[in-house]
Amino acid sequence: MIDPVVLKGFRDSLPGQEIPKKRLISKLEEIFSLYGFSPIDTPALEYTSVLLGKGGGETDKQIFHFQDNGGREVALRFDLTVPFARFVASHAGEISRPFKRYHISKVWRGENPQKGRYREFYQCDFDIVGVDNAYSDAEILSTMAFCFDTIFQGDSSRYMFHLSHRGLFNEFLDSLCVRDRSVEILRTVDKLRKIGRDEVARLLSQETGSAEKAEGILSFISVVEKEDFLATLARLEGLIGHETASSKRMKDIHTLLVQEGIADRFMLDPSITRGLDYYTGIVYETFLTALPSIGSVCSGGRYDNLASLYTKEDLPGVGSSIGLDRLIAALEDLGLPILGSRGSADLLIVSEDKAGSYEEDVKVASTLRSRGVRCDIYPFDVKKMKAVYDYCDRNGIPLVLIHNWKGERILKDTRSKESVVLEASEVAGAVEDRLS
Amino acid sequence: MIDPVVLKGFRDSLPGQEIPKKRLISKLEEIFSLYGFSPIDTPALEYTSVLLGKGGGETDKQIFHFQDNGGREVALRFDLTVPFARFVASHAGEISRPFKRYHISKVWRGENPQKGRYREFYQCDFDIVGVDNAYSDAEILSTMAFCFDTIFQGDSSRYMFHLSHRGLFNEFLDSLCVRDRSVEILRTVDKLRKIGRDEVARLLSQETGSAEKAEGILSFISVVEKEDFLATLARLEGLIGHETASSKRMKDIHTLLVQEGIADRFMLDPSITRGLDYYTGIVYETFLTALPSIGSVCSGGRYDNLASLYTKEDLPGVGSSIGLDRLIAALEDLGLPILGSRGSADLLIVSEDKAGSYEEDVKVASTLRSRGVRCDIYPFDVKKMKAVYDYCDRNGIPLVLIHNWKGERILKDTRSKESVVLEASEVAGAVEDRLS
Repeated sequence: MIDPVVLKGFRDSLPGQEIPKKRLISKLEEIFSLYGFSPIDTPALEYTSVLLGKGGGETDKQIFHFQDNGGREVALRFDLTVPFARFVASHAGEISRPFKRYHISKVWRGENPQKGRYREFYQCDFDIVGVDNAYSDAEILSTMAFCFDTIFQGDSSRYMFHLSHRGLFNEFLDSLCVRDRSVEILRTVDKLRKIGRDEVARLLSQETGSAEKAEGILSFISVVEKEDFLATLARLEGLIGHETASSKRMKDIHTLLVQEGIADRFMLDPSITRGLDYYTGIVYETFLTALPSIGSVCSGGRYDNLASLYTKEDLPGVGSSIGLDRLIAALEDLGLPILGSRGSADLLIVSEDKAGSYEEDVKVASTLRSRGVRCDIYPFDVKKMKAVYDYCDRNGIPLVLIHNWKGERILKDTRSKESVVLEASEVAGAVEDRLS
Repeated sequence: MIDPVVLKGFRDSLPGQEIPKKRLISKLEEIFSLYGFSPIDTPALEYTSVLLGKGGGETDKQIFHFQDNGGREVALRFDLTVPFARFVASHAGEISRPFKRYHISKVWRGENPQKGRYREFYQCDFDIVGVDNAYSDAEILSTMAFCFDTIFQGDSSRYMFHLSHRGLFNEFLDSLCVRDRSVEILRTVDKLRKIGRDEVARLLSQETGSAEKAEGILSFISVVEKEDFLATLARLEGLIGHETASSKRMKDIHTLLVQEGIADRFMLDPSITRGLDYYTGIVYETFLTALPSIGSVCSGGRYDNLASLYTKEDLPGVGSSIGLDRLIAALEDLGLPILGSRGSADLLIVSEDKAGSYEEDVKVASTLRSRGVRCDIYPFDVKKMKAVYDYCDRNGIPLVLIHNWKGERILKDTRSKESVVLEASEVAGAVEDRLS
């Protein structure tokens, strides 16, 4: 007998987890396609050299890599960004400019598993590449707003997009003459929520060589004129000393968000810098009002050059990534109905004598299925109802239609325990009423 | 510069491939859930010992396996059946009996790539385990019929399910006293379509030690009373010598298919045996009327014991697997509309002066999106239309709404080349008319 265990850091997804996850993914896919994003897919396995590029980072240690039977060095993808960069270089002649894609798929990292971190997990990325202007920035932001409005059923007070611009921050570092240390400073600032203000101040003092400059940076990233985007922007311009290309871009984006009627979902928050060197334009994170502690559930930004490792073509772009696992955990905590029922079916049809009632039962099922009702038929003659209720309980099925040996049809709601006796012609309508 | 190549036998999926694939998968998922099947997922990577079981077969050479950073022997799954067997053993206490699951996901095999065969491909499996009776056999068949009726938009003349029963074949081998060679004989018979009658006759003569018995087997599997299930069954019973448990089960299943009104989609074809030792009850393959040469697009059968490698619990079941890649290729050949448009959007909105028209354009897009129309907004001011038509062509977008500097709105159909000038209030309706 082989022990049926999964690897450390990996997990099965049972129906109770998989049903809501699929529902959320399919909702997001629908929204991406309403905005003209196309799905793509790339192989799970690629040449290690293609995935690691210059390499040398943290990623190298975490990647699952090996030599295949043909002696090639291969690895499982650890994110969807690197394969996307490789993809646009591979298919340069086949794709349009701009190119708008989404990709929702699994990635693998050999990190040490801890609460909420797994070695196999989903990423959900969407990007617009081949264009650098305020319209495409606004379109990514609009897509995010549509996703979150849908998830929260129009209640935009449930979340807030925190938006900033990497250029603003860099221009401020210029004004302090510490731009050459920007990589370290960015990484430090990015840890603010994790390690706190005092520790950040200590590190920044080291990095800038001046407690005063460290305080300057901390006050810059703390500028938030409550709910007033333009006032915040004006104060940041004041600290930098003048209007800049970045502050101009932020004004243009804000105008577009106002015209679209979604500006209230965005606050200008200069503490958002995103740690990665990669970003060059707008950067953003998304926090849930009721669950700030779980961190950002949707993040991203604008970059100058997606695929410089693989092609000489300049490919500026802007993209966003939804933290699916984190978002699902949050929605479950909040009990929001977007994830729908976890049940495998809406109705279970059972018979005391299957041979006698099969024909009618499959007709009822067929009618209901054509109206979108998920019907399961219990495959045994039923003598005792306990097994049936256990089955419903395990599978989250709310309604049972019992066809007894007298030929009666009884519809039972397992939630309210109410029963009603029905004529054959009344069954479909009664089931639909109970479900709505 | 790194060469952006993918591994031999692997491939990217571009939007033109990924959009129809996703549409088909989502249609199938919807049908599975209408029948009360639940989705599950399992890790891509598992212990090699768990996946290979007793091992020693062809699979061992084809599997992608390696030692992970923790020194574990791990492998990428090569099918969805073995992980499912492991899954039901791992979660015996958490799942119901019967348990109905579907699983659509990628698997990996290091086979030598050839036309239509890749090292990474999809499998689409659905099974009912924990029950062995005619009702659950009929339910798998009914689910298949619903899938194919949907795919072929109600035209059931487009496909035929070829159904048989492993027991019938074994009982006939009993009557010839060659049951002890059944494994080899099954494998030979399974090659009939590939290697032809003569070669099968030669091999069977070797295996049974008798040219007469070989001919007997060949005539048994050739019994097909055109379109009459019960007449074929009666002749097979005649050759076996009497009614058997298997022929009785086939009659019961046929009665259920008749009651459900779907019996015409199934022919009894004793040449269907499925090579694998694994099957013990009904077995089936599915052929497309217009494309018989592509082989079966949906196959499976009943098995006695799903998870005997991992648990002592008896888990009989019945399952089916749709050959997604093959089916998609066939549907494309046949030009069937189930796969829908390959386009990334239904409408592209362009402006000669984006700054002047943005507010109206996003309003139009927002109205249309709320009605399910996929709208893309071109992110540049448009001076020459050539770039726009190239973009539509690349992305398969049929309609363009042009907002010119005079404030006029022109709707152009890139298929018919027709244009019409519209008032703002007419745009949404005109777009919907053109799309329907």
